[in-house]
Amino acid sequence: MVEGVEGKRVRIKAKGRIFEGIAMPSSTGSFVLKLDNGYNLGFSEYELIEVIEEGRPKEEIAELAKKEELPNVKIISTGGTIASKVDYRTGAVTSQFSAEEIVSDVPEIAEICNVDAMLLYNILSENMKAKHWIELAREVYKAIKDGYEGVIITHGTDTMAYTASALAFMLSTPSPVVFVGAQRSSDRPSSDAAMNLVCAAKTAISDLGEVVVVMHASTSDDFCHIHRGVKVRKCHTSRRDAFRSINNPPLGVVSYPSGDIRWLSSRIRRGERELRLKDRLEEKVVLVKFFPGLKPDVLDYYYDKGYRGFVLEGTGLGHVSTDWVDTISRIAEDSVVVMTSQCLWGRVCDRVYDTGRYLLQAGVIEGEDMLPEVALIKLMWLLGNYDVEEAKRLVKVNLVGEINPTTRYWDEEVEK
Amino acid sequence: MVEGVEGKRVRIKAKGRIFEGIAMPSSTGSFVLKLDNGYNLGFSEYELIEVIEEGRPKEEIAELAKKEELPNVKIISTGGTIASKVDYRTGAVTSQFSAEEIVSDVPEIAEICNVDAMLLYNILSENMKAKHWIELAREVYKAIKDGYEGVIITHGTDTMAYTASALAFMLSTPSPVVFVGAQRSSDRPSSDAAMNLVCAAKTAISDLGEVVVVMHASTSDDFCHIHRGVKVRKCHTSRRDAFRSINNPPLGVVSYPSGDIRWLSSRIRRGERELRLKDRLEEKVVLVKFFPGLKPDVLDYYYDKGYRGFVLEGTGLGHVSTDWVDTISRIAEDSVVVMTSQCLWGRVCDRVYDTGRYLLQAGVIEGEDMLPEVALIKLMWLLGNYDVEEAKRLVKVNLVGEINPTTRYWDEEVEK
Repeated sequence: MVEGVEGKRVRIKAKGRIFEGIAMPSSTGSFVLKLDNGYNLGFSEYELIEVIEEGRPKEEIAELAKKEELPNVKIISTGGTIASKVDYRTGAVTSQFSAEEIVSDVPEIAEICNVDAMLLYNILSENMKAKHWIELAREVYKAIKDGYEGVIITHGTDTMAYTASALAFMLSTPSPVVFVGAQRSSDRPSSDAAMNLVCAAKTAISDLGEVVVVMHASTSDDFCHIHRGVKVRKCHTSRRDAFRSINNPPLGVVSYPSGDIRWLSSRIRRGERELRLKDRLEEKVVLVKFFPGLKPDVLDYYYDKGYRGFVLEGTGLGHVSTDWVDTISRIAEDSVVVMTSQCLWGRVCDRVYDTGRYLLQAGVIEGEDMLPEVALIKLMWLLGNYDVEEAKRLVKVNLVGEINPTTRYWDEEVEK
Repeated sequence: MVEGVEGKRVRIKAKGRIFEGIAMPSSTGSFVLKLDNGYNLGFSEYELIEVIEEGRPKEEIAELAKKEELPNVKIISTGGTIASKVDYRTGAVTSQFSAEEIVSDVPEIAEICNVDAMLLYNILSENMKAKHWIELAREVYKAIKDGYEGVIITHGTDTMAYTASALAFMLSTPSPVVFVGAQRSSDRPSSDAAMNLVCAAKTAISDLGEVVVVMHASTSDDFCHIHRGVKVRKCHTSRRDAFRSINNPPLGVVSYPSGDIRWLSSRIRRGERELRLKDRLEEKVVLVKFFPGLKPDVLDYYYDKGYRGFVLEGTGLGHVSTDWVDTISRIAEDSVVVMTSQCLWGRVCDRVYDTGRYLLQAGVIEGEDMLPEVALIKLMWLLGNYDVEEAKRLVKVNLVGEINPTTRYWDEEVEK
């Protein structure tokens, strides 16, 4: 791309013809020209003939790109790699892009929807806390109430699944709420930011009424998966296809670059649920991963600090050492103790072995096929909004797709 | 099978011929006859003609099955589902078989090796502790010193990978040390006990010199995987093919029923390492799984109790919230703090993002591509045998295959 023409009206020669339009920002390496009829054209080879008009401010270009017939989507930026670039002084990646810059960086989005962008946070996702989740849920609620067709949240991948779960419980939505991120910062050649954003935009205007995560699904740039927010986790530290649906097939596949969506499993459709917000979260809930030899005193430690929600990440079908039974029995009197499995895949069942049955007698509640992380967020939400007895009842009830009546083995199906 | 003939010398008619031999115990539903030439024959349909000689005790039958030309293998039973049957009073599964009974239940093993069986424990594996691992390591050491070709350890699947890791660090072995278990108890039609045991026996006499886990690898009864003990985890609560090698291909595949082994990746060969035992473990080491909002005071709690080994299960490339940095910085003065990832797949790298670099400055050590559970056991072993400074150095060094120089993506390779 010829330097310095971005945002200017130019005349170019390419493919043996003359084109006139505004030079758009592009991250793909090709030169993108917005014609007066509104269409974007991309060229890998071209010759600049002349600059007809000097540049316009970025905001004006974004406004120019809007089309009346397209649906309106709100993008809320919270930080993370998708909003990052490499700091060439230190070699490290830091969050520093605004939402507006992300959009101007991926002009294909302007063909899908009109975008209003908002920078809510600019933090790395490991620093997210319950207060951020609550504030975010309120912003999404507002956007849907304002009539946006869908909401996209750009988010760091580290804790994206936690935030998606939090919103799934706090917010009943008639429209798509789409989390998207990137594993490689957008100024790297291998970045997945552009593809993920385009697929997220397609999902945001689709016939969907739930909180989802849209991320790269293969090692090539060919499709994204739409994951149910309460059934997904990050399963690789660095790969672009790091996100996996667990104990549930992905809801759908978005082809790239066509943007066609193929639905893979039953979903909540657009308009099926009413817009509601129940945004309290109890922060005194803890997840404890069991390992052989770990003593149960850590439960007392949290109990004595006023914690009344405990998610245990046990072994196998949902076990901890038998010498935990007394402690659990004591705290379960006025706390909710939920058992999940560090296997991650499969369903907890404490009726098979002696240990499990002792745990049930002690008051442990089986977390069914919920991920430990999802059970944690659910319990934070339940104890924020209900008393302990009601939380004990509801933690086993499927509320937003976090529990399947019977576990389906996605990997079993695709491996064959 | 005609009741009551087990262990007796009988004459039967089957497939239009007359056979004479000793009726063997069998779990497969077919009738197994040991001929005088030593071969076993199985019949699904037959007619009993006469009982020639009354029954012999089980031990004598096992002794009978021994053949001079076969290698000797020691089976150490520690309990778990592979040694369980359903208690028909309660409907639950309890551990109650002895090692000898397991062997007599799977007569195919007698074709592979001569077996000496030993019942060390009869406990469910979630109740295992460091003291059990140490005692087990000593028994295996003794067996290899006594000249056994290999050692099989039957073990509950819940914590099998933890125990395998513990032995891998404590015991340098010239011979195969094979962990095996079952996801379904051996008196159930769908039990994987027999197939897993046969594949374990084949592995125990193979050209291998490390601690491995041999378990069902598919949803059919066609092959087992040989997993490196420090690179495997249980990834499903109930499926028979629950065990997966993480960040490493399985070492090999054992076909069933042929028992042929195909090696898939580089392994330590038989005799490559000398027999050595270093069996001290420090129990004051803790694994803490991070989640958004978790406060770092739990580290102080353990530090104040004298813990000097901390494995953090962080997010993504190895992150915890920035507000953990001060606490980590304080405890890392005289403790080892290792970062692993709850992604499980992939490698920790704290040099990419700001948070990670702060953590490194605070004294966090990157756990490379080690599983959190393996890093925990490694640190227990290091602090049991070395001072803190040496443990800090060695935790990043590959000792027994727990760290790969570069991560290979097994699932990437097989998915294509």
